[in-house]
Amino acid sequence: MISYKSMTNEELKREFNTVKAEYENIKTLNLSLDMSRGKPGSDNLDLSNDMLLFPNKESGFLTENGTETRNYGGPYGIDEARRLFAEILEMPEETVIVGGNASLTLMFDVIAQGMYKGFGDKPWIFEEKRKFLCPAPGYDRHFAITEYFGFELITIPTDENGPDMDMVEEYVKDSTVKGIWCVPKYSNPNGTTFSDETVRRFANLKPAAKDFRIMWDNAYVVHDLYDEGDKLLNLYDECLKVGSQDMPIFFASTSKVTLPGAGISCMAASPKTLEMIKNRMKYQVIGPDKINHLRHTMFLPDLKAVKEQMKKHAEIIRPKFEAVLDEFDANLSGLEIARWTKPNGGYFISLNVMEGCAKRVGELCKEAGLVLTNVGATYPYGKDPYDSNIRIAPTYPSIEDIGKAAKVLSVAVRYAALEKLV
Amino acid sequence: MISYKSMTNEELKREFNTVKAEYENIKTLNLSLDMSRGKPGSDNLDLSNDMLLFPNKESGFLTENGTETRNYGGPYGIDEARRLFAEILEMPEETVIVGGNASLTLMFDVIAQGMYKGFGDKPWIFEEKRKFLCPAPGYDRHFAITEYFGFELITIPTDENGPDMDMVEEYVKDSTVKGIWCVPKYSNPNGTTFSDETVRRFANLKPAAKDFRIMWDNAYVVHDLYDEGDKLLNLYDECLKVGSQDMPIFFASTSKVTLPGAGISCMAASPKTLEMIKNRMKYQVIGPDKINHLRHTMFLPDLKAVKEQMKKHAEIIRPKFEAVLDEFDANLSGLEIARWTKPNGGYFISLNVMEGCAKRVGELCKEAGLVLTNVGATYPYGKDPYDSNIRIAPTYPSIEDIGKAAKVLSVAVRYAALEKLV
Repeated sequence: MISYKSMTNEELKREFNTVKAEYENIKTLNLSLDMSRGKPGSDNLDLSNDMLLFPNKESGFLTENGTETRNYGGPYGIDEARRLFAEILEMPEETVIVGGNASLTLMFDVIAQGMYKGFGDKPWIFEEKRKFLCPAPGYDRHFAITEYFGFELITIPTDENGPDMDMVEEYVKDSTVKGIWCVPKYSNPNGTTFSDETVRRFANLKPAAKDFRIMWDNAYVVHDLYDEGDKLLNLYDECLKVGSQDMPIFFASTSKVTLPGAGISCMAASPKTLEMIKNRMKYQVIGPDKINHLRHTMFLPDLKAVKEQMKKHAEIIRPKFEAVLDEFDANLSGLEIARWTKPNGGYFISLNVMEGCAKRVGELCKEAGLVLTNVGATYPYGKDPYDSNIRIAPTYPSIEDIGKAAKVLSVAVRYAALEKLV
Repeated sequence: MISYKSMTNEELKREFNTVKAEYENIKTLNLSLDMSRGKPGSDNLDLSNDMLLFPNKESGFLTENGTETRNYGGPYGIDEARRLFAEILEMPEETVIVGGNASLTLMFDVIAQGMYKGFGDKPWIFEEKRKFLCPAPGYDRHFAITEYFGFELITIPTDENGPDMDMVEEYVKDSTVKGIWCVPKYSNPNGTTFSDETVRRFANLKPAAKDFRIMWDNAYVVHDLYDEGDKLLNLYDECLKVGSQDMPIFFASTSKVTLPGAGISCMAASPKTLEMIKNRMKYQVIGPDKINHLRHTMFLPDLKAVKEQMKKHAEIIRPKFEAVLDEFDANLSGLEIARWTKPNGGYFISLNVMEGCAKRVGELCKEAGLVLTNVGATYPYGKDPYDSNIRIAPTYPSIEDIGKAAKVLSVAVRYAALEKLV
């Protein structure tokens, strides 16, 4: 297609009339579509129905070491579950704690602990102008936690290698900067995986704050869409090489492996950092739901089983991603008014429309019956400084709906751009 | 039996020799008994095995209002579960939030929130000499949470009516006193239920601290041992009468109704206090394990079903309580060296031995192969000022073992008293 940038004003006007007619036509269809929510469809959920048959009277309720999962105790998770996540994260089992159904809660609790106890220095609440680094576009719930706790959120731009590490290295010289949020693999929403160099530069950070923590949310660690998935360098190994292993805290969960509502989550850290966390947890936790731990490890005993499960997920999700990308290719490529990512995994596609147009695209979609993730949500404070980024969550709608939705979105993107250009 | 207090020194010496011989004889039996842990036995756990069959493909995974329990969302619990706990607590459904498997975690998180956000006043962490009232003997994990957060723990003596309310009313005049821990029904470890007057005096407290909170842990709300259970006055209703409803926060769980490791928990509060809590939870929680909520409400749809389940529990537990009390009656009554409670419900019997003897009793039991709850644990900082209280947890051992254990304990109580008296 011909770039809008090379068109004369007359040509743009003609194009606008065409697109407008197309948009008005779509509106008459009275669609009701939703691409806002990064959650699995019910066909994905069905893949784990058999998990709910375990454990039972026949299987018994004991772990391999004889722990009674029905009773109290075992604050850090059953051995089988810790081993499973150790395999997933490629970290030693003794660095891993397995918790309840939400890694987000584990993260909130770590930041809360920083606030009222700190991590070896004074509690963060006593640091009046505390700051947190937020690679963006990123995950709104990460940003919201640190906003809730009164941190100033510093936006760090990202590209296909991850966060702008020059900027990160510069900011950590400030001792009031206490940490950074990262989704290092198939990041939310870009779908990009941090490059080896980015991971090494994280390991080699020399923050002025001794209690600086990297919140390494490996939410999509096994979430490949293709046989050949991205490879993420092991941050813990890199940290061990240079003695910075107390800095990162690792998170993962089975939310998009088994069930978002009833999965299990984990957290991992160096012995020293983990000890600080355990010193809080021993007051907060008697034990996680060990039955659900056992349920999971009976259903998915090892990484091999997890990968087989993820292949089944990919077979359902991949066509949805491709349906979106096909529509974008057909409707937007060459126009020079939008760029989008083509992830090898994860849950999102990131679309960048012409600067100053994203909010308008959101409005146009809404009028035409398509709900998008709140425009701006991928930036700190929910404000995209370029008004450009749109997070696309293709997993929840049916494959039929997703194609329609991507078509509506494409038309809206052209509409909004032309409004501005004409 | 003849009171030790009326014996001559000669008689005491003879008695000591008899008891000593009996104790030495017990030691030769090489017993291995444990009365330390307030947890159900496996026969109690078996009562909930069928719960684990739900939900399943046949039942489906939707709540009554169509919520998909397998997916994300619903931070405050499914409607069925909120209604169940509303019925249990005799409070309006809209005051209730249902969480994960541990009410202790809900309590920790409330105190943590007080520390970093406060409840309408400045965060508690900025109150340098903050204090918390601890009716004792009480639950060590309650005390430990406030100790962890740097509160000075104020011991409030208790009797058969609950905490010493004169003292509570006096202490709350101090604005640095931020709250009080309560187990109002079948309290841990006394097994007593707060009298109506005590509950009314709680409702009528006028604390200097506007952010004073009553942590009302109704852990044993439905845990009757006999058909005729204790009746606890409804604190929320009493508070509504006088406008103090923002003060208490209510907690309960199914830990000892279904499974301690995999139950569900709840928290309830006035609209205003609940709003403060929800304002934190919306950052911390995406949703509790809704499958486990549904699993519970399919198994126990209402209070009637809960009460039937509790009757089955009582049939298992009651004989264990009675075995302990029978041994005490046979071996200790009339000696004037010990007093003990005879609870109508709950999980514990509280034994008060001669002042200055409890630690020694613990040692003697240990040497004879019987593990007790750490002596002193029922008091703030783990220190019983009278060295007198011993918490007895009769539920976990078998009925055979529990009789033996109570016998060993009785002999140790006599031994320790005689050592002192001779």
